[in-house]
Amino acid sequence: MSTRSAVCFPARVMKPRVKRAPRVTVVLAGCGCFDGSEAHETVATLLSLDRAGAEVIFAAPNVVAPVIVNHSAGHPMIGECRNVLVESARLARGEVRDLAKVCDLDVDAVLVPGGYGATQVLCDHARAGREARALPEVVRLLEGCVRAGRPMGFACMAPVVAARVLGARGVTVGLGAGTGAAADMEAWGATVRTLGPRDVSVDRELRVVCCAAYTTARRVGEMFEGVDRMVRATLEFAGF
Amino acid sequence: MSTRSAVCFPARVMKPRVKRAPRVTVVLAGCGCFDGSEAHETVATLLSLDRAGAEVIFAAPNVVAPVIVNHSAGHPMIGECRNVLVESARLARGEVRDLAKVCDLDVDAVLVPGGYGATQVLCDHARAGREARALPEVVRLLEGCVRAGRPMGFACMAPVVAARVLGARGVTVGLGAGTGAAADMEAWGATVRTLGPRDVSVDRELRVVCCAAYTTARRVGEMFEGVDRMVRATLEFAGF
Repeated sequence: MSTRSAVCFPARVMKPRVKRAPRVTVVLAGCGCFDGSEAHETVATLLSLDRAGAEVIFAAPNVVAPVIVNHSAGHPMIGECRNVLVESARLARGEVRDLAKVCDLDVDAVLVPGGYGATQVLCDHARAGREARALPEVVRLLEGCVRAGRPMGFACMAPVVAARVLGARGVTVGLGAGTGAAADMEAWGATVRTLGPRDVSVDRELRVVCCAAYTTARRVGEMFEGVDRMVRATLEFAGF
Repeated sequence: MSTRSAVCFPARVMKPRVKRAPRVTVVLAGCGCFDGSEAHETVATLLSLDRAGAEVIFAAPNVVAPVIVNHSAGHPMIGECRNVLVESARLARGEVRDLAKVCDLDVDAVLVPGGYGATQVLCDHARAGREARALPEVVRLLEGCVRAGRPMGFACMAPVVAARVLGARGVTVGLGAGTGAAADMEAWGATVRTLGPRDVSVDRELRVVCCAAYTTARRVGEMFEGVDRMVRATLEFAGF
């Protein structure tokens, strides 16, 4: 029987104890909900971090996006070639570091907003399903965070990446109902919690916090509440 | 002597009187601060509208973007060809109407987030300076709003468009200090107010509200406060 403590919807998971500003890496995967990082969820993450006085370091894979989607028509744009890091800078408004060169030890926490970039870029679940593999730099970052005790927060589709990389450790992740990915995540060893738009799930042992965001939220304000709780719970794990 | 009433930083400009949800057109100009609509300001606008219970109709020009900027390196991407409406859908998460087919009379207000898409796409001030011209569909919308008494809100660089189209009417617009566009806007007939990050300027006669957003805001939370005040003041003009 597992001793893992995993609960839904905690008000606070740790008492604040660190006085300096938190430093947080926000991992992006492009710009746009269908092929990159979801713009609303990314900005909600940044607004929540700003309220916590956090310093943000953006990072993204320096790779060619495997697919570019016409967000108006909803279909892939054949022949379109865009770099994930370059497109991520549209959301970052400034420097985005190459994820392959980011050290997990120089920040207090790592946050990954949602969008299908999580399952198209950070891992290839959208194409490979249960045989999905995550990018080596993503594996290195997430495994490094676990080793260093750095908390991580995931929104929307990003928990799929957490499950793919950390599933063998029995991580508990949260995901919105009806995403269709839960069976694969459980096959990888993860415990999947179904979340409402304002819920968060917490794996206390691996320090992983998840929210459903637009997998269940119907309005931007509802999404923001869930993301804000995810960010705050993750920072509390880091002692802020 | 003008009878125009233009004030900075009003708490409230009208009492609420309409009970139904406001319908608002949000005009986009692409996706990204250097060549399109600023993502953070757009999401701040949407979050503020959501809190007001508003129904949002997105619209953008269905044109090829005159320039695409690498937001990581800061230089134009030569040979890159993207459609403004299609890229705007990355921020809208759904349908974006062709601005040329939008009727100004079926909404309560029009909002234009900032970003250099305002001066690259909606008008060509970034290239033509004082000789700038706005897209015909932008002129039609803004002039139509004035005729119909529909209030309009502009953030960041978007007041340049308001000044270009409505300057001959002596519109009062707000802009962040140090943008370099103020002299051109005044030459077009506009009165330009310098705004701090949380200020709004209001032209009561033409019902134009402006905020500085990232032209002076240094943090996302500061920007959000200014945009939120701009959105609320615009909705109050519409009677909400």
